[in-house]
Amino acid sequence: MSAGPGAPAGRRRALLLAYDGEAYAGWQLQPGLPTVQGALEAALEQLVRQPVRIFGSGRTDAGVHALGQVAHFDDPRGLPPERLAAALNGRLPPDIRVRLAVPVAPDFHALHSATGKTYVYQLHLSPPAGGSRAALAALPPHRRRTFHAVRADIDVQAMRAAARLLCGRHDFTALSKAMAEGRGTVKTLRAVRVLHVPRGLRIVATADGFLYGMVRMIAGLLVEVGRGRRASGQVRELLASRDRSLGPPLLPAHGLFLWRVRYPAGTGPDAGGARLLC
Amino acid sequence: MSAGPGAPAGRRRALLLAYDGEAYAGWQLQPGLPTVQGALEAALEQLVRQPVRIFGSGRTDAGVHALGQVAHFDDPRGLPPERLAAALNGRLPPDIRVRLAVPVAPDFHALHSATGKTYVYQLHLSPPAGGSRAALAALPPHRRRTFHAVRADIDVQAMRAAARLLCGRHDFTALSKAMAEGRGTVKTLRAVRVLHVPRGLRIVATADGFLYGMVRMIAGLLVEVGRGRRASGQVRELLASRDRSLGPPLLPAHGLFLWRVRYPAGTGPDAGGARLLC
Repeated sequence: MSAGPGAPAGRRRALLLAYDGEAYAGWQLQPGLPTVQGALEAALEQLVRQPVRIFGSGRTDAGVHALGQVAHFDDPRGLPPERLAAALNGRLPPDIRVRLAVPVAPDFHALHSATGKTYVYQLHLSPPAGGSRAALAALPPHRRRTFHAVRADIDVQAMRAAARLLCGRHDFTALSKAMAEGRGTVKTLRAVRVLHVPRGLRIVATADGFLYGMVRMIAGLLVEVGRGRRASGQVRELLASRDRSLGPPLLPAHGLFLWRVRYPAGTGPDAGGARLLC
Repeated sequence: MSAGPGAPAGRRRALLLAYDGEAYAGWQLQPGLPTVQGALEAALEQLVRQPVRIFGSGRTDAGVHALGQVAHFDDPRGLPPERLAAALNGRLPPDIRVRLAVPVAPDFHALHSATGKTYVYQLHLSPPAGGSRAALAALPPHRRRTFHAVRADIDVQAMRAAARLLCGRHDFTALSKAMAEGRGTVKTLRAVRVLHVPRGLRIVATADGFLYGMVRMIAGLLVEVGRGRRASGQVRELLASRDRSLGPPLLPAHGLFLWRVRYPAGTGPDAGGARLLC
């Protein structure tokens, strides 16, 4: 496998990727399971006729989608970068697409060079009759793979008040799934917006980094607040507790999109903002 | 089976339906194949504990979607109409949803009472590099089930000019797939619009009725015109020929949506215009 440090100069490439996560056990390679990284490495190996490691900006969980995932690799054959996207797309399954392939500096690293990420969680607003089961039953067929249904009488202003209290530098342990010891749990949440889309809401969260499960728990927390099950003012208390047992439920993976990964200007693939096409 | 004429007064119901056609061999019952009508009749039988025939406004082909299909049936148990949608949705697979269930007059018929229909065909505009294979390769993952990809340098003004020439009362044999003899091939196309959506086009066609394959051939014709392979002025000649062998290719089913079925005011389920949520 060709790795970062030993690669010939001028052959590092970055990919801007979109994928439908439904069929995959997440981004990261896992023996015997279909993964996005595995599918990409297989397509690249077909193209350059040798195994090449691809490094992503981070893992996405099983079932999570991406519109602006970024990955890098060193091209052992030095193929023209402008032909890479089409050549890879011709070898990839249709649920993974290379949106852009660009040459980057030899020290560019999809994970370590990233300065921030944006995730989007999509909520469908169902007619308010009945409980959450009725809301789910009213989910339009073409939204069932990319939206989570909630009742339309949710209090969006309360959600926004809670979102404002989440912003800033905090220990987000209470809003994460258990993970290996020793990793930093303090992150800076730069913005959490709750935007209206036709018959739905988008929760857009930007941070320097996210803990495991963090966006889906932020979305779960905002839904609890919007449904009046938790006061928005309790958000700071919850964070201070660092107690996962007090946290909200993790919402389903299929509503979540990795929207954008940010790099210092001019160093990574510039998506100009990934656009949701779904 | 309860049928129209013999049903007790006041028990006729109309359903406004949305479905993802991918998993179905079309609307109409076919032995041994999954169909939308079959799935609906199975759910209704579970609910009312006897077989009941459901009549649709017309067939949709295998793989074709709907946002505003209409169907009717006579409820042998006279269940409260306001509870029907939730009760059926609880028994249907998630790719078929009842958007609305309303009581209608005993002489309402989903097919015979219809005064017009609107279909939508969705085109994704891919970066113009390469041919149609490259355009398909650039189709975003979340559009692959509901859009057909064409090159973005398509001439939308030429498409609109051709669309205007299609409007009016014509014999549409040249724009249809072969069908049983003796059916009327003269239809009145009221409007064919080519609308921009983000990185795509929607062809919206409204008529008093459509022949088999007609919307997908209209879409195919407009794409040929937009790519300069056929002059827009040849549209009238093509119609006059009534020759299927001169017609354009049938575009794939997955880009097509039955959008709306129209009935005389106040007689059918009023969708207020079905909204594309995909």
